[in-house]
Amino acid sequence: MDHSRLFKNIVEKRSFLCIGLDSEIEKIPPFLMKKEDPVFEFNKRIIDSTHKFAVAYKPNLAFYECNGITGWQSLESTLKYIKNNHPGIFVIADAKRGDIGNTSKMYAKAFFEKMNFDAITVAPYMGEDSVTPFLAYHGKWVILLALTSNKGADDFQYHEEDGFRLFERVLKVSQKWGTMDNMMYVVGATRAEMLKEVRKIAPEHFLLIPGVGAQGGSLADVAKFGLNSKCGLLVNSSRGIIFADNSEEFDKVAGEKAREMQLEMELYLSERKLI
Amino acid sequence: MDHSRLFKNIVEKRSFLCIGLDSEIEKIPPFLMKKEDPVFEFNKRIIDSTHKFAVAYKPNLAFYECNGITGWQSLESTLKYIKNNHPGIFVIADAKRGDIGNTSKMYAKAFFEKMNFDAITVAPYMGEDSVTPFLAYHGKWVILLALTSNKGADDFQYHEEDGFRLFERVLKVSQKWGTMDNMMYVVGATRAEMLKEVRKIAPEHFLLIPGVGAQGGSLADVAKFGLNSKCGLLVNSSRGIIFADNSEEFDKVAGEKAREMQLEMELYLSERKLI
Repeated sequence: MDHSRLFKNIVEKRSFLCIGLDSEIEKIPPFLMKKEDPVFEFNKRIIDSTHKFAVAYKPNLAFYECNGITGWQSLESTLKYIKNNHPGIFVIADAKRGDIGNTSKMYAKAFFEKMNFDAITVAPYMGEDSVTPFLAYHGKWVILLALTSNKGADDFQYHEEDGFRLFERVLKVSQKWGTMDNMMYVVGATRAEMLKEVRKIAPEHFLLIPGVGAQGGSLADVAKFGLNSKCGLLVNSSRGIIFADNSEEFDKVAGEKAREMQLEMELYLSERKLI
Repeated sequence: MDHSRLFKNIVEKRSFLCIGLDSEIEKIPPFLMKKEDPVFEFNKRIIDSTHKFAVAYKPNLAFYECNGITGWQSLESTLKYIKNNHPGIFVIADAKRGDIGNTSKMYAKAFFEKMNFDAITVAPYMGEDSVTPFLAYHGKWVILLALTSNKGADDFQYHEEDGFRLFERVLKVSQKWGTMDNMMYVVGATRAEMLKEVRKIAPEHFLLIPGVGAQGGSLADVAKFGLNSKCGLLVNSSRGIIFADNSEEFDKVAGEKAREMQLEMELYLSERKLI
């Protein structure tokens, strides 16, 4: 999927919502625990009830790996389900990988060949050769960490040399590695005012924005500072949607929450005359 | 396992060798492919033939994840095999994880509870709350990336503020999060001369050194600049040992290669009067 196709999907759905499938087994409704694969069953119902309002799903690998082999089965089943039933939806492996070249190549194989994700989040610390193996796959994306939504972002990401903070250097340097059609950046919604700074360096790139909702970021601020002429945003919500309710109606409630966000997004898209 | 116990193991084996189980299925001897789990069978034979010369094993997760569920089975079997047969050996998940707090907590669960690794490599970009959930496990270790062995290390790790390069800041700041008994650092052997700089900031910590062998680093230089009064080094070799031979004798050859490295290490330990 390229930049234009992603924008087309956003226009069609009047939404730039990404739903984080952080499907922690301890938090899913108890009545699902008798199913053969409770995590997959949970994801399936969340997808069925939210896919009209979302342009992307983002399983966070940690919540699958902590269940070992069973977890990988749930993840593979989820991927297949999305790809078979909603082939136009963008699916992101929130894996934050990154290693020396020959190792990143294997991670790329794992996520792009073995599992058919459209994108993977990558940590920039190890530099160019840790990122480029993922860019070798046509139509697939790297989503590079720039400015994250957590408190620990302050520890290193603002480290400044010659007027450039580390996250700015990441944005500048990495633009030489990829294009607008295969690279986007993570910028936390908890730092929405920083989107102004990010947009000075990366005006056209798509940004993946975590941290709206449970982590406290504001969708209005993100839209204000982050939207560009092709939308340029995927805003993620995880817990605020998927764990909004714990009853047998959890999927219906998740659908309502996703619909609320979609409507707010539609407003911002409309204000900017993007739809 | 704590710092003293690790040093005791090093003294007993007269070795600070870590063997990287980067067991890429395309590279293992063809005769093993008829086995039910060729990767596990390969690892088992490598372990049987090298465990006398090594104090640590380091499976690199990418080489397992790229085989999907089968890969996780090979990894879990390998862990069980090491823990059941060689309980004193330190086992490192080379996973380079790191995410916001609630997610890192799940990775910690995956690697320390589900799989009983002793240590995990972690990328520092997201800062303190991405690292501390791993430190909550008594006897387990974080191995934080400081200065990596690849070319891309130049892109961001030398970014300098007020005389401190990023890798130096990582070394300084992170020492507040953990102790000598639960934190070590990755410093690439391809930058052995930089070990002098690293030792100024982290004189006592253990360092995990990749990049000897196939990547071109020199063991002599690493020992010269990196050894401290409690050894303080785990030097990794992967391809140079495990893929030294591709015949039915591969394990014997791997054992000989490991023995050669152990003998060289014994020499350096002896010169420093550590054994």
